[in-house]
Amino acid sequence: MTELPDYADLPPAPGGGRSAWGLFGAEDNLGLVNLMTPQRIAAAARLVRRGQVFCLDMPLGSVSPALATFRGAPRHQVLHQRGTAGFDDVYDNFYPQASSQWDSLAHIGYAPDQMYNGATEQEVLAGTRNTIDHWARHGLAGRAVLLDVERAMREAGWPYDPGGSSAIGVDGLELARRQAGVEFAAGDVILLHTGFAGWYVQQPGRVKNRLHGNVAAPGLEHTEAVCEYLWNIHAAAIASDTYGVEVFPADFSRQAHPFGFLHNMLIGQFGMALGELWWLSDLASDCVADGIYEMFLVSVPLNAPGGIGSPANAVAIK
Amino acid sequence: MTELPDYADLPPAPGGGRSAWGLFGAEDNLGLVNLMTPQRIAAAARLVRRGQVFCLDMPLGSVSPALATFRGAPRHQVLHQRGTAGFDDVYDNFYPQASSQWDSLAHIGYAPDQMYNGATEQEVLAGTRNTIDHWARHGLAGRAVLLDVERAMREAGWPYDPGGSSAIGVDGLELARRQAGVEFAAGDVILLHTGFAGWYVQQPGRVKNRLHGNVAAPGLEHTEAVCEYLWNIHAAAIASDTYGVEVFPADFSRQAHPFGFLHNMLIGQFGMALGELWWLSDLASDCVADGIYEMFLVSVPLNAPGGIGSPANAVAIK
Amino acid sequence: MTELPDYADLPPAPGGGRSAWGLFGAEDNLGLVNLMTPQRIAAAARLVRRGQVFCLDMPLGSVSPALATFRGAPRHQVLHQRGTAGFDDVYDNFYPQASSQWDSLAHIGYAPDQMYNGATEQEVLAGTRNTIDHWARHGLAGRAVLLDVERAMREAGWPYDPGGSSAIGVDGLELARRQAGVEFAAGDVILLHTGFAGWYVQQPGRVKNRLHGNVAAPGLEHTEAVCEYLWNIHAAAIASDTYGVEVFPADFSRQAHPFGFLHNMLIGQFGMALGELWWLSDLASDCVADGIYEMFLVSVPLNAPGGIGSPANAVAIK
Amino acid sequence: MTELPDYADLPPAPGGGRSAWGLFGAEDNLGLVNLMTPQRIAAAARLVRRGQVFCLDMPLGSVSPALATFRGAPRHQVLHQRGTAGFDDVYDNFYPQASSQWDSLAHIGYAPDQMYNGATEQEVLAGTRNTIDHWARHGLAGRAVLLDVERAMREAGWPYDPGGSSAIGVDGLELARRQAGVEFAAGDVILLHTGFAGWYVQQPGRVKNRLHGNVAAPGLEHTEAVCEYLWNIHAAAIASDTYGVEVFPADFSRQAHPFGFLHNMLIGQFGMALGELWWLSDLASDCVADGIYEMFLVSVPLNAPGGIGSPANAVAIK
Repeated sequence: MTELPDYADLPPAPGGGRSAWGLFGAEDNLGLVNLMTPQRIAAAARLVRRGQVFCLDMPLGSVSPALATFRGAPRHQVLHQRGTAGFDDVYDNFYPQASSQWDSLAHIGYAPDQMYNGATEQEVLAGTRNTIDHWARHGLAGRAVLLDVERAMREAGWPYDPGGSSAIGVDGLELARRQAGVEFAAGDVILLHTGFAGWYVQQPGRVKNRLHGNVAAPGLEHTEAVCEYLWNIHAAAIASDTYGVEVFPADFSRQAHPFGFLHNMLIGQFGMALGELWWLSDLASDCVADGIYEMFLVSVPLNAPGGIGSPANAVAIK
Repeated sequence: MTELPDYADLPPAPGGGRSAWGLFGAEDNLGLVNLMTPQRIAAAARLVRRGQVFCLDMPLGSVSPALATFRGAPRHQVLHQRGTAGFDDVYDNFYPQASSQWDSLAHIGYAPDQMYNGATEQEVLAGTRNTIDHWARHGLAGRAVLLDVERAMREAGWPYDPGGSSAIGVDGLELARRQAGVEFAAGDVILLHTGFAGWYVQQPGRVKNRLHGNVAAPGLEHTEAVCEYLWNIHAAAIASDTYGVEVFPADFSRQAHPFGFLHNMLIGQFGMALGELWWLSDLASDCVADGIYEMFLVSVPLNAPGGIGSPANAVAIK
Repeated sequence: MTELPDYADLPPAPGGGRSAWGLFGAEDNLGLVNLMTPQRIAAAARLVRRGQVFCLDMPLGSVSPALATFRGAPRHQVLHQRGTAGFDDVYDNFYPQASSQWDSLAHIGYAPDQMYNGATEQEVLAGTRNTIDHWARHGLAGRAVLLDVERAMREAGWPYDPGGSSAIGVDGLELARRQAGVEFAAGDVILLHTGFAGWYVQQPGRVKNRLHGNVAAPGLEHTEAVCEYLWNIHAAAIASDTYGVEVFPADFSRQAHPFGFLHNMLIGQFGMALGELWWLSDLASDCVADGIYEMFLVSVPLNAPGGIGSPANAVAIK
Repeated sequence: MTELPDYADLPPAPGGGRSAWGLFGAEDNLGLVNLMTPQRIAAAARLVRRGQVFCLDMPLGSVSPALATFRGAPRHQVLHQRGTAGFDDVYDNFYPQASSQWDSLAHIGYAPDQMYNGATEQEVLAGTRNTIDHWARHGLAGRAVLLDVERAMREAGWPYDPGGSSAIGVDGLELARRQAGVEFAAGDVILLHTGFAGWYVQQPGRVKNRLHGNVAAPGLEHTEAVCEYLWNIHAAAIASDTYGVEVFPADFSRQAHPFGFLHNMLIGQFGMALGELWWLSDLASDCVADGIYEMFLVSVPLNAPGGIGSPANAVAIK
């Protein structure tokens, strides 16, 4: 495909909003990751200038229990016989979505048999459609653009709370984009720095525990305008430092949002890769320092057959 | 440090061979990954020409039980309530070393209190020294060089069996290097393609099962000459498509090998990163096709506090 | 010991209430289970008349997630290769306290170093003191007495809600005892039928889910009078069909209850065995039918070295 | 049913031997546990004289790795926040058959769709037929008879090795029965004391490790005569202190044994409960001392929906 249609030209989705099903073929399991083409990857690699690597994964287990909800932290055991020189390890209760992570296209949809590109509940359970291994085999690499929403909001004097439920609409995204001095290009990974994770790790234990089952976090506004914006810039992925990319809590009534969570539309209809709980603070500081908000991004999800999610395993290289 | 000493100038190790302890400071936990400097990473990124990404991880669980020995395959459950549109997943019995993986510097040493750079059993168990999270935070990226030993051996007419215990000595390594037409540079990741994994996946179940507890695989010869060679080229890491990098089985008697397994020397004394069970077949085929044996490598191990091993999460980009 | 002292003759406990430490020797790890002597067991076996066995364990996982709180249900996998005639199974995330269960004397105390009989945090973690295997090796068997509090309350016209937080004081216990027509004897296991579990399993999913983190359940009143009563009848154990034996929620302020939860006193000071989430409904119905409220009880906890809790594995035989 | 037919009157089984399918109805999932009737249980309870309880479970994990083969020991974690007075625990990799245990009737059959009483592979996987919860709900209790084969063999001067593969035929069983001075009765649980477990726990680590994948153990001879004998005494169950009840290794060729393992016949055709790795040493010593080889047995398997096996959770009471 040479060019993606505009949002206005997409057919309507049954559950509300618009649908990108079929754009990459009826059998496609990659979604907008298809936009990560060799040409774009090669161009993005040329963004590496200093060779500085930023690890974008928070430590495993570091957000539990407050943010991991039912998932809990992994249980890790080092296997070692005292007095010997060998060590091994094993994890149980390893929820790949319990820390910095990707939602695969098998994570959520409008309805059990309306997963991205028409995949069915049965196909997802069988591990044949939309699962994380499709991205692992394709490889996730390309240009990333950091939108430092927290800083942009603060500098513009807009009301904003990194530990609260501030909604980021199209104006907020544009504000951060202009501050970054970048234009978007097809296939980009948007790194949405809200400041939430940086705020979270500094909270005392009692505040973290209070968040359990009651998380509030800034994030994308639940409007079709936001979906339209993200589609029209032809981003391949959007990853944030919050646990859900979209603002929480919010009015999820049918009246307010006929298509439900943004997740439903972005993942289920667009086939967009959503990253959550990424660690963007260090990268954001560096962008302030050198004024460069674009970088090469490489993420290597687990090659897990039938997997629903994966640790992000992501680095930004500038 | 501007330059590493030659092998001959290293002090002797108590358990035999020579020791690199202290070269990067008494508190170092990275070992030769220190050679992955920003300058080298930036230079390696310029090796990306076509933007082709090669996934170097075999699917999770794909080598069990034959090669995973006691580790077993991960148990994966998709969490889903029939009729809903959400899916989640969780792993138990997740041995990070049961498929394509890195051994951290906490994996093995000469003796429990002689782990790399003098780390003690207690420090490894406490997760404070040498563990995989140190590499995750630093980032593993740089130039990789593929040594296609299988093809070089075959073309040279040397006796060689990818499913047997063929030892690869300095002459074999040099043969493959010359065939690749490359010179090594400090900080390189050597990708040792023996053909073992490609052979393994084509075996019928009964052959795979017969390997359980009886693995034979080609790999590095157990000689100090091989250690000296690997040190003197100042490689940061060596990753192979076998389950142990070194040849198995072999004569591990004290007479034959005063320093025991190569693992002990390479990991415990040199601080070299060892990768195992990597999937190199597709990359090797591509190298034959375009004649280019150097590439940009990015690996993002799990940011796992106190972790001993990790899935490789590695891609080569040409 | 020929006879236990009265509550009034026990020494005061540092944290409030009174302490039974040392009554069975400084090294004792059994607590009041010591009262299950061969003589009493032999006498209790003679209560078996019809040979009717009642299973007192709810199905594993049946109370999750509403009551199991952080514990979650076990994950069960049947291991089976299609087309073969052999089946095996394995559990992960197996919390022994997530369904019908025993709290061992290692579960809770007044303070980390004031566990029952003076056991320390270090000893509990090392698995040497108070853990469940001590009871497994001794064997739990003896006379049980069912107190059908739910029925007694209803028949007496007292206000009572099996799905609410009705407190059961000494008067309620006596009411149920008189209705049962029994006298207590040293070493008895009291089966406290509140009706909670029977109420719970009949609730629709939405009610069960609403209980998550908000459980209300009837149970023992938080008063020293209740502790005194339980001590003076010299019960070895008390098991109820609620998730905590004691009423929830309650006023746990220092003013109201200087010794905190009843758990602290009963387990930590008395060394009394507490059973939770037992299935008593069928047994209670049978007691109504035949008018016999005493029976032989056998429970076989897991022989788990260092274990904190265990499935109840309990049967009543009439 | 008033009386079971003799072996000679059973219909032939398709895979060899004879079949008891249908004797307890087409929908039966209990097998010979049906013989544990209230009348028999009440009578067996009267065998309790001294009130002495014998724990028949070895500690969890105590036979791994040598005997647990692929199953491995459970991984146990005590959950505890330093400085607090509460402790909890959780198990992963919990194979219910890795220590003292019961095989349910869902464990093995002649063929995937010829499980006990005609249950199919699909029904076993769905957890609806033959699984361990059926026994848990019914309750396992009754008269047990200890056959001290080890002692009988030794005293009779027959060649016998508790750590070797001595086959126990009908003559050996009769020898031990006569020595015990007992007659069998319908519904009995036979406790087959071979001495294996007692031998095993005294071996040094290197001997235990050598057993891994190479277990030799005494046990029932693989002959139809043994099956006929066990059927005709109308035992409900047979539990031994070995890992497989039947002798290992043995000639499993079609010529020698048309019906394969004894397991196939006893579990799959008879519906007999098989217990393995039980701890019978202390009980056997007591039988020598008091000359009484019959006792009351209570076992409470996990109430595990769809479970294949369970810890034995068994006690003998004399």
